[in-house]
Formats: sequence, structure tokens, C-alpha cells
Amino acid sequence: MLNPIRRGINRRSLMAALVVIAGLAAMPFPASAQQDPLPSWNDGAAKQAIIRLVTATTTKDSTDFVEPADRIAVFDQDGTIWAEHPLYSQALFALDRIATMAPQHPEWKDTEPFQSVLANDSAAISKFSEKDWLEIVTVTHSGMSTAEFETLVKDWLPRSSNPILKRPVTDLVYVPMLEVMSYLRANDFRTYIVTGGGQEFVRPYANAVYGIPREQIVGSSTVTNYEYKDGKPVLMREPKMFFVDDGVGKAVGINMFIGKRPLIAFGNSDGDRQMLEWTTAGDGARLGLLVLHDDAVREFAYGPANGLPDTKVGAFSQSLMDEAASRKWTVISMKNDWARIFAEPK
Amino acid sequence: MLNPIRRGINRRSLMAALVVIAGLAAMPFPASAQQDPLPSWNDGAAKQAIIRLVTATTTKDSTDFVEPADRIAVFDQDGTIWAEHPLYSQALFALDRIATMAPQHPEWKDTEPFQSVLANDSAAISKFSEKDWLEIVTVTHSGMSTAEFETLVKDWLPRSSNPILKRPVTDLVYVPMLEVMSYLRANDFRTYIVTGGGQEFVRPYANAVYGIPREQIVGSSTVTNYEYKDGKPVLMREPKMFFVDDGVGKAVGINMFIGKRPLIAFGNSDGDRQMLEWTTAGDGARLGLLVLHDDAVREFAYGPANGLPDTKVGAFSQSLMDEAASRKWTVISMKNDWARIFAEPK
Repeated sequence: MLNPIRRGINRRSLMAALVVIAGLAAMPFPASAQQDPLPSWNDGAAKQAIIRLVTATTTKDSTDFVEPADRIAVFDQDGTIWAEHPLYSQALFALDRIATMAPQHPEWKDTEPFQSVLANDSAAISKFSEKDWLEIVTVTHSGMSTAEFETLVKDWLPRSSNPILKRPVTDLVYVPMLEVMSYLRANDFRTYIVTGGGQEFVRPYANAVYGIPREQIVGSSTVTNYEYKDGKPVLMREPKMFFVDDGVGKAVGINMFIGKRPLIAFGNSDGDRQMLEWTTAGDGARLGLLVLHDDAVREFAYGPANGLPDTKVGAFSQSLMDEAASRKWTVISMKNDWARIFAEPK
Repeated sequence: MLNPIRRGINRRSLMAALVVIAGLAAMPFPASAQQDPLPSWNDGAAKQAIIRLVTATTTKDSTDFVEPADRIAVFDQDGTIWAEHPLYSQALFALDRIATMAPQHPEWKDTEPFQSVLANDSAAISKFSEKDWLEIVTVTHSGMSTAEFETLVKDWLPRSSNPILKRPVTDLVYVPMLEVMSYLRANDFRTYIVTGGGQEFVRPYANAVYGIPREQIVGSSTVTNYEYKDGKPVLMREPKMFFVDDGVGKAVGINMFIGKRPLIAFGNSDGDRQMLEWTTAGDGARLGLLVLHDDAVREFAYGPANGLPDTKVGAFSQSLMDEAASRKWTVISMKNDWARIFAEPK
């Protein structure tokens, strides 16, 4: 990862007598001295497509050259830059909150879906309907201020654990995608997360985990109410969705939060379809990529595209695979394209 | 205004063999050589308060020091960084659209509020209710794609004219506020517009006029629908508000779009109350400022605070003035604090 290098240089300019502190903008060094910017990627069509897009849009005399201010890259989160199976991390957080809140809700012992959560009945949990999840998320994600919610997320993260991979959720980040983010930022791209998950859930850790600042997290959100507490304003999270950043919502969200069409978009499931359509419908060089989870040994294998096992969590349908082919989107095979997936445990 | 100075410097770092292109981040030069960063401001409490806030938050050993990534400044637009009387610029745009659209709407000749608009009856227009304006904005701002709307705005701007000041609306920007923006950016602040006006109305000109990029425009928005046109996706503007970025909406919008609490906020009317409350409720040094239009000679005079004439357009109520006093917000007198207001016509 590149770290900003700050170096003071004095110069006389029209504005004279200003001290200019040089910020960082790294460019790929000359080919002769070039190191591999994506060492965890095997050579193949996906790696080549990424490098080709970056080269085309950042080479000054290229017909596809794009000014740095307009170099936007968007990443779905769940299943694209970190693991999403057997359950989305935010769902794990919600289940943990149910356990924590249970003493104040004795009625949950006999009420579904809470009863199954408290019994830790993973078979029942895996069959929860959307309505069940909405009920769980609603009670666990509202009724507190935005600041209080952030504290809950931060407290949970270090003790979080993926039920199958048995590591904290923030450990289960895909190293190849971190390399892509660094490579893009080194080429003056701004990297955004565009997630169906909660914007306020992702913000507390995105900078530490991905190097992506809070203002570059586009996500779903609840209605918030402006209230006063001890004379100071707070934003209270209400049990009502405000914006659902999934499917068409991802195109809407990109337009609303960024207002510039991305040059490159990474997704992995049907909820990313419109994000990739919106991105690649722009003029000039654009690239859409989809991560296919086809590595049952190192991570998980699910589709149902290409005959992989069907899933409700991050489904990659055959129709999305067909659209990828017709629109020339690149499919990333975790099994074949990635030399490694996760960082070693510290 | 500061112009970005780009200067290549070679250096060997841990990432070795990278060519680092130095971006720009200017800092105030040592006091001995210091030029006035705010030359269009008369010396006074307002100018001093701005310089004090910037110094406190950017001086490395200050107890109020803030990392560059968290230096956020927010500006209301209408009446704060450009003129809003006798009507908001976006309202002028809407009225112009009514005239353009009239041939397709023969019924408007006999229907209010359109009849008065087409008759150019400024007395009647000045008495339009909120419902009248909503009707006008709805028919003029929806039914087209986001791209088509942007073209309409861009086409209108050069032929726009403030009815009293007789200059294009983009000429009626306050030079002292442009200086503040440059001064803040030179100190690594990111400057955002947080406007009750339309986000998509402001984006087409904000970079050219204020040096503020599209992704740093927080504003009101309509619902957009994702549709296909010739196989490509478009976002169609629907006749329904999605987000109203005014009053409490400004605090909500700052949290949603930026996710960081500003260090400094500039407003001028009752719609900016919660933005200033939210900003100044944060820890450490914070500053809220309100522009008071008390210069009938060079611009306009309206309140009703301080006994200035009452107005429906950008009202600055006495209760806001009282809150400013109790919360120690700074009131900027256009008459006394600004040595000049507008740039000379080109």
C-alpha cells in the first residue's frame, strides 16, 4: 500500500511566498523498472483487463485519457472485497445484537425469528425470509443515535467471527482486491464502496480496512431524525429505510453521491447488475468485473451461474453471467485468477 | 485564487522506482512573509474568526489540530456564496423553462401559476405560494433524464440574468467567499456546498464557478427511475422529491454525504440553522457563520433580523440572530465586513 509522502518545497509563484506542501500522486513508473502492481493475481484475462483499463485512462496521449478528477472506481463490498458466506457480516452483527438485547425482550424467547436466533439454530437462520431479516435488522439498527450505532459496530468488530472461517470479519478481506484499490489510487483514481449494506455500518472500519474514507462509502441508510439531547443535536436512527443501495439503487446512489460515472466497477452478484450497466454504458474505456466464487477449497463456491451451488446470499445468476458475456464484462474466477485470497492471520 | 501547481519530484521510497508527481496543498507561509489570504474582507471580528479557526485546526501543536482528511467546510449556496434576491437562481431557471415549454401547454395561458409567469407579472410571481412554486418546479424539473436536465441548465446559465442586478447569475458570486474557499483549500480543507437547491442544478457549474467538484455538492434531489433507452440505462427525473436538503435536512445531508462533522459552516438564513448547530456541536474548535444582507447599496438588505426588511427569500429571522448570539456564531455584515462583493464585469 502506498502511504502519502509529504514533503515541503519552497517556491516563488504568482502567489509568492506560499509554502507548498507536496501531496502524493503516484504514477506507474517506466516499464523497464515496473514492479507487478497486482502480485496476488495470476496472469490471465482479468488481471490484463484491469491493467489495460488503467493504462488506457491514465496515459496522457491515449484517446481514452481521463483527468484525475474524473477517475472513479466503485466496489461492491459483500462477496466482492470481503467474504459474505455463510452470512453477510452485517447480519452477523445483527444476530449478535439480538443476543445482547434479549434480556430486555423476554418475549423473544417465544417469538420468531428471535427464538431461533437466541437458540443459535443455524439451520433455521439460513431459512429466514426477507421479512424475518427486515425485522431483525430493524430492531437492532434503530432506536439509537448515529454516534451510538457507530460505537456498537466498533465494539463488535474485534470480537466478530465468521461461523465457518473462524476469523474476525475484517480479516476476511480479499488481498487481490486490496491490491487493485492501491493500484487504482496510485493512478489517481478515487475508490468508493457502493454497498447494499448499511452506509453507517461500513464507515467505522472502511478507512482502516480498505483505505477508503467515510465520504466515499455509498450504502443503504435509515431515516434519521434530528433531535436535541442536553442541548446538542443528535441524529436518531428510525426503524424505516431511507435509501436501499442495491440493484437499480446502486446506479441511483452512484449518481447521487458521486455524480460522475465510474471508469471501473467491481461486483459479484445480481444486486450489482445495474452498477455495472451504468458504469460500462459511459463513453471511452470502461470496465465491469464480477467476482465468481468458485473456490470451495480456499473460500466458498456458489452461483448458481456455471452450475455452482445456488444461494440466497450473494447469488450470481446465470442471467447475470449471460449479460456479462454479451456486455463484455470480465468474470474473475477466485480459483484461477487469485494466487491468494486472504492475508495470513497476524 | 490559488491555482494548482504541479511539480515532479523524484525520490526513492519503500515502494522504490515509483515516479511521484507532487500534487498541491498550500499552507499559509510564515507570518513574516504572509500576504492577506482574505483581501476582500475588512479587518473585523468575522475575518479574525475565520483565520483563528483555520490556524487552530491546522497548526500541528495546537490542541485543536485536525488531520487534513477531517478538515471539512460547508457552504450554503443561495445568499451565502451568490445572490438570491429577488428570486433564487433556480427559480429564474424554472420560470425560463415555463416560457420555453409554453407552446406545448396551451392550457397554461389560462391557468395559474403559469399564466402569471407567461405574462411576466413580477408582482404576482413575488406572491407565489410554496404550492405554486412546487408546481412550477415539478413540471420544469422532471420528465427528462439527468443528462438532459444538465444540458438544460448549461444552456440557460450564459443567458441567465438577475432581474435587478442585470448580470448572469454566475457573475453574482461573492468574491470574499471565493477567497474563503481558496484559503480553506490551501489549508487542506475540503469545501462542500450544502444547498436547499437542487443537487443536479448546481453540479454543472460548481467546479467552474466555485472550484467545487460534483461529488462535493450536497443538495435536494428528485426520485430518479432507472430505465433503458436504446439499450443503455438512463436515470429519469420523476415529479417527486427524494431528499429535501434544507433545515434539519442539512444536518442529515452532511451526515449522509460526508459522514464527517464540518469544522466550519457558512449560512445566511433560517434553513441553515441546523447545519450550524450540527457543525458547532462538535468537539474542539468549530465555527458557524451567517451572512447578513445589510447592504442595500451594493446588493440587497433583508432580514427580518435587526429590523431589516422581511422577505420570504432567504429570511434571516430574529430568532436565528438570537441563537447566533447565544451559540457564539459569527454574523458577517456584508456592508461592514466586505470591502467588495462582486467581481467587476468582464
